[in-house]
Amino acid sequence: MGLLGGTIGLAAKTRGLFRNVRGATSRKSTLDIALRVGAIDTPCPTPEEAAKGADIVVVATPVSSIPDMCIRCAPHAAPGALITDVGSVKGMIDARLQGRMPETRTFIGSHPLAGSEKRGVVYANAGLLKGATCIITPGEDSNEEAVETLSQFWQALGMRVFSMPPNEHDTILASVSHVPHLAASAVLAAIPDAAMPFGASGLKDTTRVAAGDPQLWRDIVEANQQEVLEALENLAAQIQVIRGRILRADWEGVHQFLTEAAEKRRKRYPENPEEIAQ
Amino acid sequence: MGLLGGTIGLAAKTRGLFRNVRGATSRKSTLDIALRVGAIDTPCPTPEEAAKGADIVVVATPVSSIPDMCIRCAPHAAPGALITDVGSVKGMIDARLQGRMPETRTFIGSHPLAGSEKRGVVYANAGLLKGATCIITPGEDSNEEAVETLSQFWQALGMRVFSMPPNEHDTILASVSHVPHLAASAVLAAIPDAAMPFGASGLKDTTRVAAGDPQLWRDIVEANQQEVLEALENLAAQIQVIRGRILRADWEGVHQFLTEAAEKRRKRYPENPEEIAQ
Repeated sequence: MGLLGGTIGLAAKTRGLFRNVRGATSRKSTLDIALRVGAIDTPCPTPEEAAKGADIVVVATPVSSIPDMCIRCAPHAAPGALITDVGSVKGMIDARLQGRMPETRTFIGSHPLAGSEKRGVVYANAGLLKGATCIITPGEDSNEEAVETLSQFWQALGMRVFSMPPNEHDTILASVSHVPHLAASAVLAAIPDAAMPFGASGLKDTTRVAAGDPQLWRDIVEANQQEVLEALENLAAQIQVIRGRILRADWEGVHQFLTEAAEKRRKRYPENPEEIAQ
Repeated sequence: MGLLGGTIGLAAKTRGLFRNVRGATSRKSTLDIALRVGAIDTPCPTPEEAAKGADIVVVATPVSSIPDMCIRCAPHAAPGALITDVGSVKGMIDARLQGRMPETRTFIGSHPLAGSEKRGVVYANAGLLKGATCIITPGEDSNEEAVETLSQFWQALGMRVFSMPPNEHDTILASVSHVPHLAASAVLAAIPDAAMPFGASGLKDTTRVAAGDPQLWRDIVEANQQEVLEALENLAAQIQVIRGRILRADWEGVHQFLTEAAEKRRKRYPENPEEIAQ
């Protein structure tokens, strides 16, 4: 349980969805914090112990260890249990779990699009889920009842649920999340050290995601290699488009590029005049 | 007077620095708002009228119109007056004003690194300046007394003042501001429309600056063409570095790239655990 696992536990407990929310972490001290912030009812020494008799198991580890953790936990869950995860890449996880679930246990992937560059269960915050999007990624042969249960689980935590195939998820996330993260890191890499002190609030926001855990993001990029490469090529191509217009002094073209980007953003994130007051 | 001009007027009035803060805007309705939010004492129908008898004139128009506006206002200011601006590009302005100031009036450029993607004097907020950086860009032959007065002016408004040549300013700002802005726009341009609804809070922050006024930024890019092109090439090169490592499955290299970026950012913007609570 880190930030996201803790947040899910907290939201489930706040809404009284389960008789008993059990949690495991690799460090004892983290488990104490999870208990203290109200993210769990029962601290467990191992993932197997946490999964014991569970109706729903939510694996919230870094992407690279999700498949093994699901395989470890599934046999201990209740018959008919649903196993899910919160990983930012879905195709790789689905592929590794193909045929690995014990009888009557079902795995369906989830990706709650909620989080923060902060880490740790101490930052657990049920508000992170409210109104946010959760993508679930059933396979072609997923049990319909299990899909419905998973959808209801996330909705009960306050999320808007979308369902799509794992590979479609990975294509979309490469472009709206993984590559923007790499772009933020590249923006920083391109700034000479001596110029950094003159970065203002714009640069701070533009690069916020780049403060995220490098190990976690390295895992995500590895697990989504091909899609990330394609989305990165799209970004490189757009940078060449704007570079070409500046080189040719095509200021009308520069204006158009900036206008289209501003409109695209406004459509997704309508302006909130109150933001400025913060 | 827009957001920044209004903010400067508001901060000057709040701190009681001048007997009379006069302001002009192209629209009468904006002038009414400036008066209402307390950004000015005296609304003026024209820039010449606002500059009349002034000890300090602050031109806060888009970059492309700053030189002409300084030339229009300077003759009306008090003898010995200091003319400055708030433009994001300094070399072009300095070059255009070379030998254009009337006797006893001095122009020295300023760039307060404070702002918002919001526009309009209605968002004027003295807090935007507090503790923020202001770069002033005296020429080699600038009057030392005038440089000192300008420095004290911004300090009195709560800003930390740095002094450097105009061209050095433009090189630095291309890398910490102008190119990060273009990168945010390119990130948006590279996202397929169908994927946009799945952008979450990370994408929102990464692209916040791209919501800025396209005309204003087109002007900045035009005025700083060469420096922007160089900084854009640095960014494109870094994107190729990370792309190469992903292509070669050099995950250790990817991890290093992400770690260096995270550390560079942390050094400039130390983590604030309370941010998460907002």
